[in-house]
Amino acid sequence: MTSNRVTNDEDITSAASSRRHVENLPYVHKVGVPPKQSLLKEITYALKETFLHDDPLRPFKDQTGTRKLKLGIEAIFPILDWGRHYNLSKFKGDLIAGLTIASLCIPQDIGYAKLANLDPQFGLYSSFVPPLIYACMGSSRDIAIGPVAVVSLLLGSMLQDEIDPKNKIEYQRLAFTATFFAGVTQFVLGFFRLGFLIDFLSHAAIVGFMAGASITISLQQLKGLLGIKKFTKKTDIVSVMRSVFTVVHHGWNWQTILIGVTFLAFLLLAKYIGKKNKKLFWIPAIAPLISVIISTFFVYITHADKKGVQIVNDIHRGINPSSAKKIYFTGDYLAKGFRIGAVAGMVALTEAVAIGRTFAALKDYNIDGNKEMVALGTMNVIGSMTSCYVATGSFSRSAVNYMAGCNTAVSNIVMSCVVLLTLEVITPLFKYTPNAILASIIISAVVGLFDIDAMILIWKIDKFDFVACMGAFFGVVFISVEIGLLIAVAISFAKILLQVTRPRTAVLGKIPRTSVYRNIQQYPEAIKVPGVLIVRVDSAIYFSNSNYIRERILRWLTDEEEQLKENNLPRIQYVIVEMSPVTDIDTSGIHALEDLYKSLQKREIQLVLANPGQVVLDKLHASDFANKIGDDKIFLTVADAITTLAPKMEP
Amino acid sequence: MTSNRVTNDEDITSAASSRRHVENLPYVHKVGVPPKQSLLKEITYALKETFLHDDPLRPFKDQTGTRKLKLGIEAIFPILDWGRHYNLSKFKGDLIAGLTIASLCIPQDIGYAKLANLDPQFGLYSSFVPPLIYACMGSSRDIAIGPVAVVSLLLGSMLQDEIDPKNKIEYQRLAFTATFFAGVTQFVLGFFRLGFLIDFLSHAAIVGFMAGASITISLQQLKGLLGIKKFTKKTDIVSVMRSVFTVVHHGWNWQTILIGVTFLAFLLLAKYIGKKNKKLFWIPAIAPLISVIISTFFVYITHADKKGVQIVNDIHRGINPSSAKKIYFTGDYLAKGFRIGAVAGMVALTEAVAIGRTFAALKDYNIDGNKEMVALGTMNVIGSMTSCYVATGSFSRSAVNYMAGCNTAVSNIVMSCVVLLTLEVITPLFKYTPNAILASIIISAVVGLFDIDAMILIWKIDKFDFVACMGAFFGVVFISVEIGLLIAVAISFAKILLQVTRPRTAVLGKIPRTSVYRNIQQYPEAIKVPGVLIVRVDSAIYFSNSNYIRERILRWLTDEEEQLKENNLPRIQYVIVEMSPVTDIDTSGIHALEDLYKSLQKREIQLVLANPGQVVLDKLHASDFANKIGDDKIFLTVADAITTLAPKMEP
Repeated sequence: MTSNRVTNDEDITSAASSRRHVENLPYVHKVGVPPKQSLLKEITYALKETFLHDDPLRPFKDQTGTRKLKLGIEAIFPILDWGRHYNLSKFKGDLIAGLTIASLCIPQDIGYAKLANLDPQFGLYSSFVPPLIYACMGSSRDIAIGPVAVVSLLLGSMLQDEIDPKNKIEYQRLAFTATFFAGVTQFVLGFFRLGFLIDFLSHAAIVGFMAGASITISLQQLKGLLGIKKFTKKTDIVSVMRSVFTVVHHGWNWQTILIGVTFLAFLLLAKYIGKKNKKLFWIPAIAPLISVIISTFFVYITHADKKGVQIVNDIHRGINPSSAKKIYFTGDYLAKGFRIGAVAGMVALTEAVAIGRTFAALKDYNIDGNKEMVALGTMNVIGSMTSCYVATGSFSRSAVNYMAGCNTAVSNIVMSCVVLLTLEVITPLFKYTPNAILASIIISAVVGLFDIDAMILIWKIDKFDFVACMGAFFGVVFISVEIGLLIAVAISFAKILLQVTRPRTAVLGKIPRTSVYRNIQQYPEAIKVPGVLIVRVDSAIYFSNSNYIRERILRWLTDEEEQLKENNLPRIQYVIVEMSPVTDIDTSGIHALEDLYKSLQKREIQLVLANPGQVVLDKLHASDFANKIGDDKIFLTVADAITTLAPKMEP
Repeated sequence: MTSNRVTNDEDITSAASSRRHVENLPYVHKVGVPPKQSLLKEITYALKETFLHDDPLRPFKDQTGTRKLKLGIEAIFPILDWGRHYNLSKFKGDLIAGLTIASLCIPQDIGYAKLANLDPQFGLYSSFVPPLIYACMGSSRDIAIGPVAVVSLLLGSMLQDEIDPKNKIEYQRLAFTATFFAGVTQFVLGFFRLGFLIDFLSHAAIVGFMAGASITISLQQLKGLLGIKKFTKKTDIVSVMRSVFTVVHHGWNWQTILIGVTFLAFLLLAKYIGKKNKKLFWIPAIAPLISVIISTFFVYITHADKKGVQIVNDIHRGINPSSAKKIYFTGDYLAKGFRIGAVAGMVALTEAVAIGRTFAALKDYNIDGNKEMVALGTMNVIGSMTSCYVATGSFSRSAVNYMAGCNTAVSNIVMSCVVLLTLEVITPLFKYTPNAILASIIISAVVGLFDIDAMILIWKIDKFDFVACMGAFFGVVFISVEIGLLIAVAISFAKILLQVTRPRTAVLGKIPRTSVYRNIQQYPEAIKVPGVLIVRVDSAIYFSNSNYIRERILRWLTDEEEQLKENNLPRIQYVIVEMSPVTDIDTSGIHALEDLYKSLQKREIQLVLANPGQVVLDKLHASDFANKIGDDKIFLTVADAITTLAPKMEP
């Protein structure tokens, strides 16, 4: 770069800094070409990162055979590990937490079973067996296991598309079949360490889906809350609202509304108090049970059930009967049960794993997602044989569990025992519980699923995510739960595909007083180097984006050349592609680089690469492209490239 | 960093260089926080990069209304633009090229029509109308339009799954319906600028698919080559081989084999000569026509057709009849035609666009992929109404076209005229052409689709790509064309998903005598900074990988801490995450960073970010995460971070 090229201030700075650069840092480090890795090693590494990235086998390393066996059994049943250190002081916390979540879960279970179009006792069954299994096999200390609103709704909505719930026996059989396959799906995903598949449902889509589900579930409760007898089977807001208002004159029951609304107000107030003062978390936790007791007593003494207030009537007494023989292992319903189970199982997993991770991060312990899936899967498979429907971790109850001071999964065992007692002893007392109360309890429970703060945050952070969120939300509210879920998944995938097809590129300039080159849009003070165009490619170069990247670099060049021509500045002689963010390249990517190289050659411009990573460099050599452009055109940094090339440039 | 921490050689170097660093480069540039972009601008930018990345509207900028209209019409019909500068010298090249590809295409067309289970004239029809339309609307100067082997096979195989080809009328109607929808698919993809969708079929998958198709097509030719009368409908190698050998005693016809093998040897020899000496490209180009003429004459004079040598017999004379009324616009076959057409149309596009791009790169002119798709789509829609089946760019004929010196799409017009003459005048002469010759011509044509060099290159560059390639190959050969295609697409997608779920991460060290930090695996000479773990994340942080990235960083930390403990070295105090390659982050990503921050806080380790890009920085601020970790924990470079933090570290 000679002085006659210095035409303006920018150039002076740049040339000066370049010169300083040359004087101070004449050392140009060679680009590292590491020894070629063997194929086996490469494949092992790729497989390990894909399936065993959390290194689950680490504790087994360098252990004796017996010890390995012991560790293996402990890995499957963590209770054998933490159980040995269990003591009374831990039990105190677990007991209180267990009693608290039990008081919360019993009324919720009865309501959720209704969401799934099942008799109330099935909700209680699902809070008895699965928590016991999970306590032995799970590794989360805070999760509270049982039926949850969204999965109940999803299951109920998909099951009734196949069988009318009035057809009780067959409907139940399909429900158990679906539960069985939900468990199998979860187990298989965990066992083959495919747990990462659930990460494909984006956070934004889940927020939208959950919010939509909370609206849909609340709308379904209008039936109980208003005492409507004939209600639509559909779940979309339009059908429900039409159903509600067509019966406004003779279908609503004012006594029911009075009870329902009063207790709903009470429950929401309790929730509000619990939110304002975290220490009073137990108020919203026991409010549902108190509501049930008061309202049941009230109905019993006023004979409100004779005045049109619908009551629970009969809950089957006794613990879970076996249902192993009810599962469809042949016939048409096998495939249907499998499909429904797979979907419900995946959604249940998403919720459980999210809960597990959240609380593990709060208390700083580790959760192996795949092991959790195995535990949840086993629990649902066994559940399906003992008259349970899909159980998973409940966000609201897990939060209460955590705040009530649970220490281990023993709180789930305590809850399970309370549910056992309830099933054996107290169920007849629920006879006069008004349905309206269950509706209010469910509404107050699902209100929390509508996370407006999360939505605002999503809007602030990423507009595309917000579209995904709203898509799932409106899909659930206006069409159906399944469609909403489908939209959520589709938008999540679309985002991934868009990400890989249209990666960002940026033109770099030199930041004054440093040897650092950065995006000139982010750093307007960065100065372009005359005669050189520096482009950074912000992604691996794969078949899905190789053409775009090639065309985009050429477009940057054309833009730059036009601008230079207008200002009568010297022409571009080098295009430096900053490859730091290019983590990998495939055959299509190499072809794109070759095409770029050819196009640049036609324009008498040299292609220079800066800082290709290990993998990329290997492939550039394997494909002989490194030789084609010349090893001396590959540099460790952009600064090195400029230092070396500047003296060679034509004036 | 005080001297009592210097415990070994590495530390000395590092501390020394750090100190030198501090003295020489005390200047720490602030991380750029560009002004917030408006939502509209952001969305416009995203839309532009997705759909208009090649800036097709650039010529229209700053033009008057009439000029815009003129440019618009020229954009749709490029012939109006280049036609004005057309001259005799250009025509000379085009004439020779056109005659050469015509001589090549006529026998190929007749054979390819058989592959699609259509009468021979339909192949010729498809080489008459489509090239004329393309010449007016297309922008590639070298592509040769007409029926191609792979699309013919695919179409034939999918059509015969729906209708028995013996049911001629209905079969043809479905073929035209499929062609119509192939055109519509192509047009729509181009018009809505969704052309990038075809990039989702990876190069490796295409290579495998093409190689598989070449084997399958060659196997199908055994029928003609061996003179077998009863042949399987299936295309997999096992069925075909069984079909061939069950009739070995009475089904093979030695006269047919003699003719077929002789001419196949001649054709392959011609191909070999053409490959060895590029100047003799015309030998393989005219060899097929010569073979047809000689063999036809031979059969005619020897009456070999009476001895069991199958002949073409009858080619309908005259130009394309209208078929607009034959297309199914209602009924069952509408949906089937649409499905088949969409698949065939996409495959045809893949081939045409690849050809267009290859030759455009060779001659350095620009091809607008989306505009090409509109041209190809229009051509097939019109083709479907004039008795043509799906036409596209043929790789082998385009190569001949290029080598014969074509200058513009006029060579396609010349070819089209020759085909017109053939249809009107010469077809009766094909009566005695033996089918075995057509089989040999097809085999010699598809041999080129088996690109062993590309396969070897893929193996060298990327093992996973090679798996994709082989998957598609074996899928086509052992199962069917559609399954092979499905495998190719599935593996391509799996690769994309794997890419985004399991991005690479690397631990960085300081390269001696520089202020550059690089992967210590690639640069074994790089030195870790004591008390600091520097991790680079090589991907955008999205929902699909946010958990993995968080867990992976923590695993790097655990590994490092174990190693430090073993060697009694000081503990880690800072984790620096180098964010240069992190091009974007979404809500899940922010949550992952927050969880990471919490986990590190529990271990009394500070989280530091280096060089977050513009978009990421915006989002870190929008989500308040930047404030949470502190703006002073975000640096422009790792070197800056080390310079600033080193003095603050505890001894």
